[in-house]
Amino acid sequence: MALTAPGGTWAPYTFDRRDLRPDDIAVRVTWCGVCHSDLHAVEALTAGSAPLVPGHEFVGEVAAVGGEVTAFRVGDPVAVGNIVDSCGTCAACRAGQEQFCADFPTLTYDSVTPGAYSREYVLRESFAYPMPAGLDPAGVAPLMCAGATVYEPLRRWDVGPGQLVGVVGLGGLGHLAVKFAKALGARVAVFTTSPGKEQPALDLGADEVIVSGDDTAMAAQTGRFDFILDTASAKHDPSPYLRALRRDGTLCMLGIPDRYEPEAMALLYGYKRLAASGSAGRARTREMLDFAARHGITADVEKVPAREVGRALDRLARNDVRWRFVLDLSGLG
Amino acid sequence: MALTAPGGTWAPYTFDRRDLRPDDIAVRVTWCGVCHSDLHAVEALTAGSAPLVPGHEFVGEVAAVGGEVTAFRVGDPVAVGNIVDSCGTCAACRAGQEQFCADFPTLTYDSVTPGAYSREYVLRESFAYPMPAGLDPAGVAPLMCAGATVYEPLRRWDVGPGQLVGVVGLGGLGHLAVKFAKALGARVAVFTTSPGKEQPALDLGADEVIVSGDDTAMAAQTGRFDFILDTASAKHDPSPYLRALRRDGTLCMLGIPDRYEPEAMALLYGYKRLAASGSAGRARTREMLDFAARHGITADVEKVPAREVGRALDRLARNDVRWRFVLDLSGLG
Repeated sequence: MALTAPGGTWAPYTFDRRDLRPDDIAVRVTWCGVCHSDLHAVEALTAGSAPLVPGHEFVGEVAAVGGEVTAFRVGDPVAVGNIVDSCGTCAACRAGQEQFCADFPTLTYDSVTPGAYSREYVLRESFAYPMPAGLDPAGVAPLMCAGATVYEPLRRWDVGPGQLVGVVGLGGLGHLAVKFAKALGARVAVFTTSPGKEQPALDLGADEVIVSGDDTAMAAQTGRFDFILDTASAKHDPSPYLRALRRDGTLCMLGIPDRYEPEAMALLYGYKRLAASGSAGRARTREMLDFAARHGITADVEKVPAREVGRALDRLARNDVRWRFVLDLSGLG
Repeated sequence: MALTAPGGTWAPYTFDRRDLRPDDIAVRVTWCGVCHSDLHAVEALTAGSAPLVPGHEFVGEVAAVGGEVTAFRVGDPVAVGNIVDSCGTCAACRAGQEQFCADFPTLTYDSVTPGAYSREYVLRESFAYPMPAGLDPAGVAPLMCAGATVYEPLRRWDVGPGQLVGVVGLGGLGHLAVKFAKALGARVAVFTTSPGKEQPALDLGADEVIVSGDDTAMAAQTGRFDFILDTASAKHDPSPYLRALRRDGTLCMLGIPDRYEPEAMALLYGYKRLAASGSAGRARTREMLDFAARHGITADVEKVPAREVGRALDRLARNDVRWRFVLDLSGLG
């Protein structure tokens, strides 16, 4: 499914993937999540880069393998995220943090390479992951971007029992952050701008919900939190969440505006730390899938036929999804 | 010495200190440093808050003691910094981080309480420190604000042997940061906007100097630094220093603009951390004085008669000082 021109419509689009290199696999895609960053790609589309085929969190079945592939066989269920290659030799890659590759990692789709809103995808076997057993494949697809993106910082800051963790924003990332942080043993509070998300947050396992527009409620959070993961994509002031941290606590941002603009005193007073994170390396992604399988964690999804991707993106732009759309690619032939 | 009105002149000014409480000491001030923040106080002066008597890093001799004072006797040499009281009961105070007191610490001067550009100062004994032996008292005075302010984050981030530490800005704070970081065992590089400060930085012990306006030199710093202490007071973009950090490195800001505005990707890529610091608690200040005495560290100062404070502040505003003015209060009678 491609967006054929800026402001245009979504339509089936036929193209050829590259011929399999010796270490490539071809994946017959079954489910692909609709990530908020796909909306940004749509908005950024220019006539010169059209058509656009997004999609970077998907599951499927191995359809063909290159001559030197050892980890997969035809028919294996497989999952792929938003990084499909990296230099392999820089310090970050050697440390298993391919998301910070000095050459920038190869993303699953861009203006040249079509993504996984498509029936087939080709990649190096070493960036594909065996599908965990016992989980709904449609709910696994969003784990590959949204899940890895929230799990990585939760583990990096050692979230666990005895801690109070805040999750800012309840959407595709936020709802998975609640599930993972709870499964890691922390108490979890959700900060949301939407009073209507209070009950859904509690239903997901949150211990507390704070409506961030309520000044009294926000003032009462001062100094409470060990760690806060901010999943809100729109640019906003991180200062209220810095103030909500205990001394030496960290606020980790997942949204990527041009700049973060915290008040100096909100950062200084109590030695708060501002950090940011995006995606995850391969070791952590494998760990996330193992953890999800052990704890029965998948994304809560709305399943949509691939041909209805335009409608799904329109609803996502209005924040109208609980909590992630996944496209059913099987109908594309 | 008081600034009598906004935009006015400096003139001798006579006033009474409070009567000694049982746990107070009166200090006969001999030397008081001229801190960059004193300039901000001058700029912020309003007719309603005049006269202004700044001064919050000083040394002197105990001139009188309250009935319950146990730590000092009349005649003891003593040093005082920019915090003279705190609640004593909040979590920060109990942790020895009075600089983050939940009630905000009592500062050495403000619009009501005159500071130590004066011959006498009165404070609780528990916020005064014995003067370290063997150091020039005039060079000790700036340790009490500038010294404590740079030593605290260097120790908080465990600066030591095997590390490459950056110091941004070479002034009152920066030159002490170089001395302390070297004495702690780190390799030290100074970032300066002024090519003319290259040799002085090397003379202070820096191993490298990087002129921050040299794009080629800055690009070569990518990923090198374990920790960077940014002492520049003017608002500036922290992103180049975030990029100069290794993965997981921390940039700690000491200047306090309204907001810090790092590029999101400069923070995200490689898990850099942005932090800020100001002043130090009592335990760390005592440790800093012990460390300074052991390593023979004092500020490099220009000694100025107290009556010439106006000229000193004018030169400080033009960044024309190597590296800290100290006022000689003995001439005030």
